[in-house]
Amino acid sequence: MAFDFLQVPEQEAVWVAAEAIRRQMEALLQALAVPAEHAQIVAEILTFASLHGVDTHGAGNILNYCGAIEQGIYTIPQRLEIVSESETTALLDCGNGLGFVAAHRAMQLSIEKARTYGVGMVSVRNGHHIGMAGFYPMMAAAQDMLGMAITNAAPSMRPLHGTLPRLGTNPIAFAAPAGQERPFLLDMATTTVANGKIALARRLGVPIPTGWAVTAAGEPITEPPVYRAGEWMQTPLGNTHEGGGHKGYGLAVMVDILCGVLSGGGFSAQLQSGENMTWTMAVDIARFRPVEEFKAMMDEMIRTLHATPTAPGGERVLVAGDPEFDTAAIRQERGIPFQRGQYEAILAGAQRLGVEIFI
Amino acid sequence: MAFDFLQVPEQEAVWVAAEAIRRQMEALLQALAVPAEHAQIVAEILTFASLHGVDTHGAGNILNYCGAIEQGIYTIPQRLEIVSESETTALLDCGNGLGFVAAHRAMQLSIEKARTYGVGMVSVRNGHHIGMAGFYPMMAAAQDMLGMAITNAAPSMRPLHGTLPRLGTNPIAFAAPAGQERPFLLDMATTTVANGKIALARRLGVPIPTGWAVTAAGEPITEPPVYRAGEWMQTPLGNTHEGGGHKGYGLAVMVDILCGVLSGGGFSAQLQSGENMTWTMAVDIARFRPVEEFKAMMDEMIRTLHATPTAPGGERVLVAGDPEFDTAAIRQERGIPFQRGQYEAILAGAQRLGVEIFI
Repeated sequence: MAFDFLQVPEQEAVWVAAEAIRRQMEALLQALAVPAEHAQIVAEILTFASLHGVDTHGAGNILNYCGAIEQGIYTIPQRLEIVSESETTALLDCGNGLGFVAAHRAMQLSIEKARTYGVGMVSVRNGHHIGMAGFYPMMAAAQDMLGMAITNAAPSMRPLHGTLPRLGTNPIAFAAPAGQERPFLLDMATTTVANGKIALARRLGVPIPTGWAVTAAGEPITEPPVYRAGEWMQTPLGNTHEGGGHKGYGLAVMVDILCGVLSGGGFSAQLQSGENMTWTMAVDIARFRPVEEFKAMMDEMIRTLHATPTAPGGERVLVAGDPEFDTAAIRQERGIPFQRGQYEAILAGAQRLGVEIFI
Repeated sequence: MAFDFLQVPEQEAVWVAAEAIRRQMEALLQALAVPAEHAQIVAEILTFASLHGVDTHGAGNILNYCGAIEQGIYTIPQRLEIVSESETTALLDCGNGLGFVAAHRAMQLSIEKARTYGVGMVSVRNGHHIGMAGFYPMMAAAQDMLGMAITNAAPSMRPLHGTLPRLGTNPIAFAAPAGQERPFLLDMATTTVANGKIALARRLGVPIPTGWAVTAAGEPITEPPVYRAGEWMQTPLGNTHEGGGHKGYGLAVMVDILCGVLSGGGFSAQLQSGENMTWTMAVDIARFRPVEEFKAMMDEMIRTLHATPTAPGGERVLVAGDPEFDTAAIRQERGIPFQRGQYEAILAGAQRLGVEIFI
């Protein structure tokens, strides 16, 4: 959920229509030899994140991916390969290419298998960043299925009591369709906050709350330097023992097992920055009960949660996905805000690569 | 993970051999017309919890289940019924009986389906308390599978910013086998702490840490009364917005969807105290990669986590399951500690029902 102090000040923003930035990203990627189909997938997912207010995982990052391609860190064009497969499962090799493309294929495969056998599950190795994890379960929800996507990452989180990072922010995303109400969409890092929120605070020049990051000695810091280099770490969700920090840490290890160990691609402590293994699952609701009954109960649950009384003058009770869908409704009309420097860099990148300008 | 201040003082404990209390519970349940096979399952799971130090979910609770049977809250003997089924999925009706029996059958079914199709998933409705959720995924881990079990419960947790409870403690349990190392076993409430830990603090007469429970106004309380009655609530893991309380809350809703909505048995806010819907999953590791390779990487991951440096004089880094397996090793030898009052009540119960005394 959004933090007010982490919003880009509106007066500094350049607003770009979603379709314009989507086409711009597609063009940039194709100029770097990314096949049209792959470029379309990446541009769609980055645009989805920006539309839904997840700016830390949105179009503003496009030049990072372009850079990884130009530096040869990614193999482009990438070759997806199914290493092993059964009725309900697959192990997919991302071909050291764009993580988005493999995660998208993994969820497509999960959905196909779920349609035939009830459940589908795919683990991805040899992969990279997949962007906003919540995009993928929404693919399943659109097919009247439950969807889940998780991904591991190089170390940034300390285990409870540790003095070195050993886990990534290892996010968990889960979506379920509703009827009249909007889908349930949980998309959460297993750290106290996503890594990108700390980076955003740094860009905006604001301190972060106590408890998000600690020094090697475990002392909280509110202005962590750019480079960790063992000097500081993120905290697991729950942070302290009494706060349940062993739970956030434990969830991060669960993600590592499903993504890194099940795929063989490696657990967090084995990964280099930019390496990410992924796991997706789709579940066909109709195998359990009629979809319309499921959705009607989802509506009732969401309405019950929304109707929870709150303290006078306090914040209202939200359901996971609310901030994202609220933002998407606004940005579909108004466009996506970019920090001016970000916008100009993308423009310059497009000019350098000689592609058509859409933004 | 255990909190030192929540240990039963050893000088007040009565020690009973695991096999003795297991047979005692079996006899008590059979005296109340629970079929032998069902009594054996319940006694095994409660003994497992006690052996592993999860006293809040162990044999000390046996009289609560006996009471629910005698009062007719549970239907005994219960009839398990498969309401719908496909290759990989089943919807199981617990028959308003012992939740343990249905959750055990759900995991057995999940394992059978996973053996045939790679993944198995069962949702249980019309159910009751399943005890220690972590028992069930361990059934899968023993078969070289990944296991997961989650269960919802009547409201005790507030949604972030709410002034009334709307979610249960809705725990998540996940297990994975290792090679030389012990299995990974995560078993966590999505509240900051399990409900039973607050009840245990009350029995021991010690205050709880700030952040575990709040008044309707959101003020932390350290000595919550026995009865909630809308006066106080547990907090979601993360507790505050800045601490990530929306994540613990979101995970609890995810559990509610998989257990309550997918089964049709009802989400937390629809449940009465003592009603619990459950969801289990088993995943056949060999479908993804050779089990021995998976286990070797699990060993490496667990050793890497254990080897994380810690602050001088600080606590060591554990892996989920360590405290439970450490305790089980001790209690296999020494027996299970009961508070004297608990022990005497079980003895009196056995005498009243005229069953053989084993403890």
